[in-house]
Amino acid sequence: MIVELVGTAERMLESQKFAALYAQVQQFYACQMQILDAHDTERWAGLFTEDAVFELPSLPEPVRARAGLAHYVRAGAQRQRRAGRRLNHWVGMLDVQPQADGSLRTRCSALVYVTPSGGGSKVLYVCVMEDVLVRTRGEWRTAHRRVTRDDLA
Amino acid sequence: MIVELVGTAERMLESQKFAALYAQVQQFYACQMQILDAHDTERWAGLFTEDAVFELPSLPEPVRARAGLAHYVRAGAQRQRRAGRRLNHWVGMLDVQPQADGSLRTRCSALVYVTPSGGGSKVLYVCVMEDVLVRTRGEWRTAHRRVTRDDLA
Amino acid sequence: MIVELVGTAERMLESQKFAALYAQVQQFYACQMQILDAHDTERWAGLFTEDAVFELPSLPEPVRARAGLAHYVRAGAQRQRRAGRRLNHWVGMLDVQPQADGSLRTRCSALVYVTPSGGGSKVLYVCVMEDVLVRTRGEWRTAHRRVTRDDLA
Repeated sequence: MIVELVGTAERMLESQKFAALYAQVQQFYACQMQILDAHDTERWAGLFTEDAVFELPSLPEPVRARAGLAHYVRAGAQRQRRAGRRLNHWVGMLDVQPQADGSLRTRCSALVYVTPSGGGSKVLYVCVMEDVLVRTRGEWRTAHRRVTRDDLA
Repeated sequence: MIVELVGTAERMLESQKFAALYAQVQQFYACQMQILDAHDTERWAGLFTEDAVFELPSLPEPVRARAGLAHYVRAGAQRQRRAGRRLNHWVGMLDVQPQADGSLRTRCSALVYVTPSGGGSKVLYVCVMEDVLVRTRGEWRTAHRRVTRDDLA
Repeated sequence: MIVELVGTAERMLESQKFAALYAQVQQFYACQMQILDAHDTERWAGLFTEDAVFELPSLPEPVRARAGLAHYVRAGAQRQRRAGRRLNHWVGMLDVQPQADGSLRTRCSALVYVTPSGGGSKVLYVCVMEDVLVRTRGEWRTAHRRVTRDDLA
Protein backbone atom coordinates (compact mmCIF):
# COMPACT_ATOMS: atom_id res chain seq x y z
CA MET A 1 0.00 0.00 0.00
CA ILE A 2 2.71 2.49 1.03
CA VAL A 3 4.90 1.37 -1.85
CA GLU A 4 1.99 1.98 -4.19
CA LEU A 5 1.36 5.45 -2.78
CA VAL A 6 5.03 6.36 -3.12
CA GLY A 7 4.98 5.07 -6.68
CA THR A 8 1.94 7.18 -7.48
CA ALA A 9 3.48 10.27 -5.89
CA GLU A 10 6.71 9.72 -7.81
CA ARG A 11 4.86 9.36 -11.10
CA MET A 12 2.86 12.52 -10.36
CA LEU A 13 6.03 14.48 -9.58
CA GLU A 14 7.64 13.13 -12.75
CA SER A 15 4.66 14.12 -14.88
CA GLN A 16 4.57 17.60 -13.29
CA LYS A 17 8.27 18.06 -14.04
CA PHE A 18 7.65 17.05 -17.63
CA ALA A 19 4.69 19.46 -17.89
CA ALA A 20 6.87 22.29 -16.54
CA LEU A 21 9.55 21.57 -19.16
CA TYR A 22 7.04 21.15 -21.96
CA ALA A 23 5.40 24.54 -21.20
CA GLN A 24 8.81 26.25 -20.96
CA VAL A 25 9.85 24.87 -24.34
CA GLN A 26 6.57 25.91 -25.99
CA GLN A 27 6.99 29.41 -24.57
CA PHE A 28 10.65 29.44 -25.70
CA TYR A 29 9.75 28.60 -29.30
CA ALA A 30 6.83 31.05 -29.34
CA CYS A 31 9.21 33.86 -28.35
CA GLN A 32 11.92 32.62 -30.69
CA MET A 33 9.65 32.60 -33.74
CA GLN A 34 8.27 36.03 -32.82
CA ILE A 35 11.83 37.39 -32.64
CA LEU A 36 12.76 35.69 -35.92
CA ASP A 37 9.75 37.11 -37.77
CA ALA A 38 10.53 40.57 -36.38
CA HIS A 39 14.13 40.22 -37.66
CA ASP A 40 15.44 41.25 -34.24
CA THR A 41 18.98 39.95 -34.83
CA GLU A 42 20.31 40.99 -31.44
CA ARG A 43 17.67 39.18 -29.37
CA TRP A 44 17.85 36.26 -31.84
CA ALA A 45 21.53 35.71 -31.11
CA GLY A 46 20.80 35.61 -27.38
CA LEU A 47 18.58 32.55 -27.89
CA PHE A 48 21.63 30.45 -28.80
CA THR A 49 24.58 29.41 -26.72
CA GLU A 50 27.90 31.10 -27.50
CA ASP A 51 29.13 28.14 -29.52
CA ALA A 52 25.80 26.94 -30.95
CA VAL A 53 25.87 25.26 -34.35
CA PHE A 54 23.07 25.53 -36.89
CA GLU A 55 22.53 23.16 -39.84
CA LEU A 56 20.16 24.50 -42.49
CA PRO A 57 19.11 22.95 -45.80
CA SER A 58 19.88 26.22 -47.59
CA LEU A 59 23.46 26.38 -46.28
CA PRO A 60 26.26 24.21 -47.67
CA GLU A 61 27.71 23.55 -44.18
CA PRO A 62 26.91 24.07 -40.52
CA VAL A 63 27.34 27.64 -39.25
CA ARG A 64 28.08 29.12 -35.86
CA ALA A 65 24.62 30.29 -34.89
CA ARG A 66 25.56 33.62 -33.31
CA ALA A 67 27.94 34.94 -35.96
CA GLY A 68 26.51 33.20 -39.01
CA LEU A 69 22.87 33.72 -38.23
CA ALA A 70 22.88 37.40 -37.37
CA HIS A 71 24.13 37.93 -40.93
CA TYR A 72 21.60 35.42 -42.28
CA VAL A 73 18.60 36.92 -40.44
CA ARG A 74 19.59 40.44 -41.52
CA ALA A 75 19.99 39.42 -45.18
CA GLY A 76 16.62 37.63 -45.09
CA ALA A 77 14.95 40.72 -43.64
CA GLN A 78 16.31 42.90 -46.44
CA ARG A 79 15.28 40.41 -49.12
CA GLN A 80 11.74 40.35 -47.73
CA ARG A 81 11.43 44.10 -47.50
CA ARG A 82 12.50 44.39 -51.13
CA ALA A 83 10.06 41.65 -52.16
CA GLY A 84 7.31 43.28 -50.09
CA ARG A 85 6.39 40.10 -48.25
CA ARG A 86 6.44 38.83 -44.69
CA LEU A 87 7.25 35.42 -43.28
CA ASN A 88 5.62 33.73 -40.30
CA HIS A 89 7.31 30.78 -38.66
CA TRP A 90 5.27 28.23 -36.74
CA VAL A 91 6.39 25.19 -34.87
CA GLY A 92 4.16 22.38 -33.71
CA MET A 93 4.09 18.66 -33.08
CA LEU A 94 6.66 19.30 -30.36
CA ASP A 95 8.43 16.21 -29.05
CA VAL A 96 10.49 16.94 -25.91
CA GLN A 97 12.96 14.33 -24.66
CA PRO A 98 14.68 15.25 -21.38
CA GLN A 99 18.25 13.92 -21.23
CA ALA A 100 20.16 12.62 -18.21
CA ASP A 101 22.52 15.65 -18.28
CA GLY A 102 19.61 18.11 -17.94
CA SER A 103 19.59 19.11 -21.60
CA LEU A 104 16.56 18.58 -23.80
CA ARG A 105 16.35 17.02 -27.22
CA THR A 106 13.42 18.44 -29.12
CA ARG A 107 11.94 17.65 -32.49
CA CYS A 108 9.15 19.59 -34.10
CA SER A 109 7.53 20.40 -37.40
CA ALA A 110 8.08 23.93 -38.57
CA LEU A 111 5.93 25.74 -41.10
CA VAL A 112 6.87 28.89 -42.91
CA TYR A 113 3.94 30.99 -44.15
CA VAL A 114 4.54 33.81 -46.59
CA THR A 115 2.21 36.80 -46.92
CA PRO A 116 2.79 39.16 -49.85
CA SER A 117 1.70 42.76 -49.27
CA GLY A 118 -1.83 42.79 -50.60
CA GLY A 119 -2.69 39.45 -49.03
CA GLY A 120 -3.01 35.79 -49.88
CA SER A 121 -0.93 33.91 -47.32
CA LYS A 122 0.38 30.49 -48.23
CA VAL A 123 2.62 27.75 -46.88
CA LEU A 124 6.14 28.17 -48.16
CA TYR A 125 7.93 25.24 -46.51
CA VAL A 126 7.30 22.33 -44.19
CA CYS A 127 10.46 21.56 -42.21
CA VAL A 128 11.60 19.32 -39.39
CA MET A 129 13.58 21.12 -36.68
CA GLU A 130 15.73 19.16 -34.24
CA ASP A 131 17.29 21.07 -31.34
CA VAL A 132 19.48 20.45 -28.36
CA LEU A 133 18.44 22.90 -25.65
CA VAL A 134 20.54 23.67 -22.59
CA ARG A 135 19.75 25.88 -19.63
CA THR A 136 22.33 28.61 -19.14
CA ARG A 137 21.93 31.52 -16.68
CA GLY A 138 18.35 30.41 -15.95
CA GLU A 139 17.20 30.45 -19.57
CA TRP A 140 16.84 27.78 -22.23
CA ARG A 141 19.09 28.29 -25.23
CA THR A 142 19.62 26.31 -28.41
CA ALA A 143 23.04 24.63 -28.45
CA HIS A 144 22.51 22.77 -31.70
CA ARG A 145 19.86 22.97 -34.40
CA ARG A 146 19.30 20.90 -37.50
CA VAL A 147 16.57 21.86 -39.95
CA THR A 148 15.63 19.52 -42.78
CA ARG A 149 13.12 20.20 -45.50
CA ASP A 150 10.67 17.73 -46.92
CA ASP A 151 10.89 19.02 -50.47
CA LEU A 152 14.68 18.68 -50.53
CA ALA A 153 14.74 15.17 -49.08
CA MET B 1 23.04 24.39 0.96
CA ILE B 2 19.62 25.03 2.51
CA VAL B 3 19.38 28.35 0.65
CA GLU B 4 20.14 26.49 -2.56
CA LEU B 5 17.48 23.86 -1.87
CA VAL B 6 14.88 26.53 -1.11
CA GLY B 7 15.86 28.34 -4.31
CA THR B 8 15.46 25.15 -6.31
CA ALA B 9 12.08 24.40 -4.68
CA GLU B 10 10.91 27.94 -5.41
CA ARG B 11 11.97 27.72 -9.03
CA MET B 12 10.20 24.36 -9.37
CA LEU B 13 6.99 25.77 -7.87
CA GLU B 14 7.25 28.80 -10.14
CA SER B 15 7.70 26.63 -13.23
CA GLN B 16 4.77 24.41 -12.20
CA LYS B 17 2.55 27.46 -11.77
CA PHE B 18 3.59 28.66 -15.21
CA ALA B 19 2.85 25.23 -16.71
CA ALA B 20 -0.61 25.24 -15.10
CA LEU B 21 -1.38 28.66 -16.59
CA TYR B 22 0.06 27.74 -19.98
CA ALA B 23 -2.10 24.61 -20.22
CA GLN B 24 -5.21 26.51 -19.12
CA VAL B 25 -4.65 29.16 -21.76
CA GLN B 26 -4.08 26.56 -24.50
CA GLN B 27 -7.29 24.80 -23.46
CA PHE B 28 -9.12 28.16 -23.36
CA TYR B 29 -8.12 29.05 -26.92
CA ALA B 30 -8.89 25.55 -28.21
CA CYS B 31 -12.44 25.85 -26.86
CA GLN B 32 -12.76 29.45 -28.02
CA MET B 33 -11.79 28.65 -31.61
CA GLN B 34 -14.10 25.62 -31.62
CA ILE B 35 -17.00 27.84 -30.48
CA LEU B 36 -16.09 30.52 -33.04
CA ASP B 37 -15.97 28.03 -35.93
CA ALA B 38 -19.33 26.61 -34.81
CA HIS B 39 -20.82 30.14 -34.80
CA ASP B 40 -22.16 29.59 -31.30
CA THR B 41 -22.73 33.27 -30.54
CA GLU B 42 -24.13 32.71 -27.07
CA ARG B 43 -21.19 30.68 -25.74
CA TRP B 44 -18.83 33.00 -27.63
CA ALA B 45 -20.07 36.04 -25.70
CA GLY B 46 -19.46 34.19 -22.41
CA LEU B 47 -15.73 33.97 -23.23
CA PHE B 48 -15.37 37.73 -22.85
CA THR B 49 -15.79 39.93 -19.78
CA GLU B 50 -18.90 42.12 -19.67
CA ASP B 51 -16.96 45.20 -20.79
CA ALA B 52 -14.38 43.53 -23.05
CA VAL B 53 -13.09 45.51 -26.01
CA PHE B 54 -12.11 43.98 -29.34
CA GLU B 55 -9.91 45.64 -31.99
CA LEU B 56 -10.09 43.99 -35.40
CA PRO B 57 -8.37 45.00 -38.66
CA SER B 58 -11.70 44.72 -40.49
CA LEU B 59 -13.48 47.12 -38.13
CA PRO B 60 -12.96 50.91 -38.25
CA GLU B 61 -12.93 51.21 -34.45
CA PRO B 62 -12.81 49.03 -31.30
CA VAL B 63 -16.11 47.32 -30.42
CA ARG B 64 -17.60 46.07 -27.19
CA ALA B 65 -16.96 42.37 -27.55
CA ARG B 66 -20.26 41.05 -26.18
CA ALA B 67 -22.68 43.29 -28.07
CA GLY B 68 -20.62 43.99 -31.17
CA LEU B 69 -19.29 40.50 -31.69
CA ALA B 70 -22.47 38.51 -31.35
CA HIS B 71 -23.70 40.50 -34.35
CA TYR B 72 -20.36 40.06 -36.12
CA VAL B 73 -20.16 36.31 -35.54
CA ARG B 74 -23.77 35.85 -36.68
CA ALA B 75 -23.21 37.90 -39.84
CA GLY B 76 -20.04 35.95 -40.62
CA ALA B 77 -21.89 32.67 -40.21
CA GLN B 78 -24.57 33.74 -42.66
CA ARG B 79 -22.01 34.96 -45.19
CA GLN B 80 -20.23 31.62 -45.02
CA ARG B 81 -23.36 29.55 -45.39
CA ARG B 82 -24.29 31.54 -48.49
CA ALA B 83 -20.78 31.17 -49.90
CA GLY B 84 -20.81 27.44 -49.06
CA ARG B 85 -17.51 27.53 -47.22
CA ARG B 86 -16.24 26.94 -43.70
CA LEU B 87 -13.56 28.67 -41.69
CA ASN B 88 -11.16 27.08 -39.21
CA HIS B 89 -9.30 29.26 -36.77
CA TRP B 90 -6.00 28.11 -35.30
CA VAL B 91 -3.79 29.79 -32.80
CA GLY B 92 -0.21 28.88 -32.07
CA MET B 93 3.13 30.32 -31.04
CA LEU B 94 1.47 31.19 -27.75
CA ASP B 95 3.41 33.60 -25.56
CA VAL B 96 1.94 33.87 -22.03
CA GLN B 97 3.11 36.68 -19.74
CA PRO B 98 1.62 36.53 -16.22
CA GLN B 99 1.12 40.02 -14.76
CA ALA B 100 1.48 41.14 -11.15
CA ASP B 101 -2.30 41.71 -10.84
CA GLY B 102 -3.08 38.07 -11.76
CA SER B 103 -4.11 38.85 -15.32
CA LEU B 104 -2.30 37.35 -18.32
CA ARG B 105 -1.01 39.09 -21.39
CA THR B 106 -0.93 36.68 -24.30
CA ARG B 107 0.31 37.00 -27.85
CA CYS B 108 -0.15 34.36 -30.49
CA SER B 109 -0.23 33.81 -34.21
CA ALA B 110 -3.66 33.03 -35.58
CA LEU B 111 -4.33 31.29 -38.86
CA VAL B 112 -7.64 31.22 -40.66
CA TYR B 113 -8.15 28.29 -43.03
CA VAL B 114 -11.02 28.31 -45.48
CA THR B 115 -12.56 25.14 -46.91
CA PRO B 116 -15.04 25.54 -49.77
CA SER B 117 -17.65 22.80 -50.03
CA GLY B 118 -16.06 20.36 -52.43
CA GLY B 119 -12.64 20.64 -50.79
CA GLY B 120 -9.31 22.33 -51.24
CA SER B 121 -8.53 24.05 -47.94
CA LYS B 122 -6.21 27.01 -47.95
CA VAL B 123 -4.80 29.64 -45.62
CA LEU B 124 -6.90 32.78 -45.75
CA TYR B 125 -5.11 35.01 -43.23
CA VAL B 126 -2.16 35.05 -40.89
CA CYS B 127 -2.88 37.31 -37.91
CA VAL B 128 -1.32 38.30 -34.63
CA MET B 129 -3.72 38.17 -31.68
CA GLU B 130 -2.90 40.00 -28.43
CA ASP B 131 -5.19 39.40 -25.45
CA VAL B 132 -5.55 40.46 -21.86
CA LEU B 133 -7.08 37.54 -19.97
CA VAL B 134 -8.62 37.85 -16.52
CA ARG B 135 -10.03 35.17 -14.27
CA THR B 136 -13.66 35.85 -13.30
CA ARG B 137 -15.90 33.35 -11.51
CA GLY B 138 -13.19 30.68 -11.83
CA GLU B 139 -12.84 30.95 -15.61
CA TRP B 140 -10.44 32.81 -17.88
CA ARG B 141 -12.11 35.44 -20.03
CA THR B 142 -10.78 37.88 -22.60
CA ALA B 143 -10.94 41.47 -21.32
CA HIS B 144 -9.19 43.01 -24.31
CA ARG B 145 -8.21 41.68 -27.73
CA ARG B 146 -6.28 43.22 -30.56
CA VAL B 147 -5.94 41.39 -33.85
CA THR B 148 -3.58 42.67 -36.53
CA ARG B 149 -3.10 41.25 -39.98
CA ASP B 150 0.20 40.90 -41.78
CA ASP B 151 -1.21 41.72 -45.20
CA LEU B 152 -2.75 44.97 -43.97
CA ALA B 153 0.36 46.16 -42.14
CA MET C 1 -9.40 31.46 6.29
CA ILE C 2 -8.26 27.83 6.53
CA VAL C 3 -11.14 26.76 4.30
CA GLU C 4 -10.03 29.34 1.77
CA LEU C 5 -6.41 28.16 1.89
CA VAL C 6 -7.48 24.55 1.42
CA GLY C 7 -9.68 25.64 -1.49
CA THR C 8 -6.75 27.46 -3.09
CA ALA C 9 -4.42 24.48 -2.55
CA GLU C 10 -7.01 22.12 -4.05
CA ARG C 11 -7.47 24.31 -7.10
CA MET C 12 -3.70 24.53 -7.56
CA LEU C 13 -3.34 20.75 -7.36
CA GLU C 14 -6.21 20.35 -9.81
CA SER C 15 -4.67 22.77 -12.27
CA GLN C 16 -1.26 21.05 -11.97
CA LYS C 17 -2.87 17.67 -12.66
CA PHE C 18 -4.57 19.13 -15.71
CA ALA C 19 -1.28 20.65 -16.92
CA ALA C 20 0.43 17.26 -16.54
CA LEU C 21 -2.27 15.57 -18.62
CA TYR C 22 -2.31 18.33 -21.21
CA ALA C 23 1.46 18.10 -21.73
CA GLN C 24 1.31 14.29 -21.95
CA VAL C 25 -1.40 14.44 -24.59
CA GLN C 26 0.48 17.03 -26.65
CA GLN C 27 3.60 14.87 -26.50
CA PHE C 28 1.53 11.80 -27.40
CA TYR C 29 0.11 13.41 -30.54
CA ALA C 30 3.48 14.85 -31.55
CA CYS C 31 4.97 11.34 -31.48
CA GLN C 32 1.92 9.81 -33.12
CA MET C 33 1.99 12.21 -36.07
CA GLN C 34 5.75 11.73 -36.44
CA ILE C 35 5.23 7.95 -36.58
CA LEU C 36 2.33 8.34 -39.03
CA ASP C 37 4.33 10.56 -41.39
CA ALA C 38 7.24 8.10 -41.25
CA HIS C 39 4.84 5.26 -42.16
CA ASP C 40 6.14 3.22 -39.24
CA THR C 41 3.21 0.78 -39.18
CA GLU C 42 4.52 -1.30 -36.30
CA ARG C 43 4.96 1.59 -33.85
CA TRP C 44 1.70 3.08 -35.15
CA ALA C 45 -0.27 0.01 -34.12
CA GLY C 46 1.21 0.23 -30.61
CA LEU C 47 -0.39 3.66 -30.14
CA PHE C 48 -3.86 2.07 -30.13
CA THR C 49 -5.45 -0.31 -27.67
CA GLU C 50 -5.89 -3.90 -28.85
CA ASP C 51 -9.57 -3.37 -29.65
CA ALA C 52 -9.42 0.30 -30.74
CA VAL C 53 -11.92 1.43 -33.35
CA PHE C 54 -11.21 4.07 -35.96
CA GLU C 55 -13.83 6.02 -37.93
CA LEU C 56 -12.47 7.79 -41.00
CA PRO C 57 -14.31 9.85 -43.61
CA SER C 58 -12.57 7.90 -46.38
CA LEU C 59 -13.70 4.51 -45.04
CA PRO C 60 -17.27 3.22 -45.46
CA GLU C 61 -17.38 1.82 -41.92
CA PRO C 62 -15.38 1.85 -38.66
CA VAL C 63 -12.27 -0.36 -38.68
CA ARG C 64 -10.31 -2.11 -35.98
CA ALA C 65 -7.39 0.26 -35.65
CA ARG C 66 -4.59 -2.29 -35.26
CA ALA C 67 -5.50 -4.65 -38.09
CA GLY C 68 -7.23 -2.22 -40.41
CA LEU C 69 -4.84 0.65 -40.03
CA ALA C 70 -1.55 -1.14 -40.50
CA HIS C 71 -2.86 -2.04 -43.94
CA TYR C 72 -4.17 1.50 -44.46
CA VAL C 73 -0.93 3.21 -43.41
CA ARG C 74 1.13 0.86 -45.60
CA ALA C 75 -1.08 1.43 -48.64
CA GLY C 76 -0.91 5.20 -48.10
CA ALA C 77 2.87 5.07 -47.90
CA GLN C 78 3.10 3.21 -51.21
CA ARG C 79 0.69 5.62 -52.90
CA GLN C 80 2.75 8.57 -51.76
CA ARG C 81 6.06 7.08 -52.86
CA ARG C 82 4.62 6.47 -56.31
CA ALA C 83 3.20 10.00 -56.45
CA GLY C 84 6.53 11.41 -55.20
CA ARG C 85 4.96 13.42 -52.44
CA ARG C 86 5.03 13.53 -48.65
CA LEU C 87 2.34 14.20 -46.11
CA ASN C 88 2.71 16.05 -42.80
CA HIS C 89 0.03 15.71 -40.17
CA TRP C 90 -0.46 18.45 -37.58
CA VAL C 91 -2.87 18.63 -34.74
CA GLY C 92 -3.75 21.74 -32.78
CA MET C 93 -6.55 23.45 -30.92
CA LEU C 94 -6.38 20.56 -28.47
CA ASP C 95 -9.32 20.27 -26.09
CA VAL C 96 -8.69 17.73 -23.30
CA GLN C 97 -11.61 16.61 -21.11
CA PRO C 98 -10.60 14.25 -18.27
CA GLN C 99 -13.35 11.73 -17.51
CA ALA C 100 -14.34 10.27 -14.14
CA ASP C 101 -13.02 6.82 -15.14
CA GLY C 102 -9.50 8.18 -15.79
CA SER C 103 -9.86 8.20 -19.56
CA LEU C 104 -9.55 11.37 -21.61
CA ARG C 105 -11.82 12.69 -24.30
CA THR C 106 -9.88 14.86 -26.69
CA ARG C 107 -10.92 16.95 -29.67
CA CYS C 108 -8.51 18.69 -31.97
CA SER C 109 -8.17 20.16 -35.41
CA ALA C 110 -5.91 18.19 -37.70
CA LEU C 111 -4.21 19.56 -40.78
CA VAL C 112 -2.67 17.51 -43.53
CA TYR C 113 0.03 19.25 -45.56
CA VAL C 114 1.27 17.75 -48.79
CA THR C 115 4.70 18.45 -50.23
CA PRO C 116 5.40 17.23 -53.76
CA SER C 117 9.04 16.45 -54.50
CA GLY C 118 10.33 19.69 -55.94
CA GLY C 119 8.52 21.80 -53.35
CA GLY C 120 5.43 23.89 -52.88
CA SER C 121 3.70 22.58 -49.74
CA LYS C 122 0.00 23.12 -49.37
CA VAL C 123 -2.87 22.26 -47.06
CA LEU C 124 -4.63 19.14 -48.25
CA TYR C 125 -7.32 18.71 -45.60
CA VAL C 126 -8.64 20.31 -42.44
CA CYS C 127 -10.15 17.64 -40.18
CA VAL C 128 -11.62 17.34 -36.72
CA MET C 129 -10.22 14.43 -34.70
CA GLU C 130 -12.06 13.14 -31.62
CA ASP C 131 -10.30 10.54 -29.49
CA VAL C 132 -10.89 8.53 -26.38
CA LEU C 133 -7.51 7.97 -24.73
CA VAL C 134 -6.89 5.39 -22.03
CA ARG C 135 -3.74 4.69 -20.04
CA THR C 136 -2.59 1.10 -20.41
CA ARG C 137 0.75 -0.19 -19.13
CA GLY C 138 1.81 3.36 -18.22
CA GLU C 139 1.22 4.81 -21.69
CA TRP C 140 -1.64 6.70 -23.28
CA ARG C 141 -3.28 4.84 -26.16
CA THR C 142 -6.18 5.69 -28.43
CA ALA C 143 -9.19 3.47 -27.74
CA HIS C 144 -11.51 5.20 -30.17
CA ARG C 145 -10.96 7.78 -32.90
CA ARG C 146 -13.38 9.62 -35.12
CA VAL C 147 -12.09 11.85 -37.88
CA THR C 148 -14.47 14.13 -39.78
CA ARG C 149 -13.60 16.35 -42.68
CA ASP C 150 -14.94 19.83 -43.26
CA ASP C 151 -15.13 19.49 -47.03
CA LEU C 152 -17.20 16.29 -46.79
CA ALA C 153 -19.65 17.67 -44.21
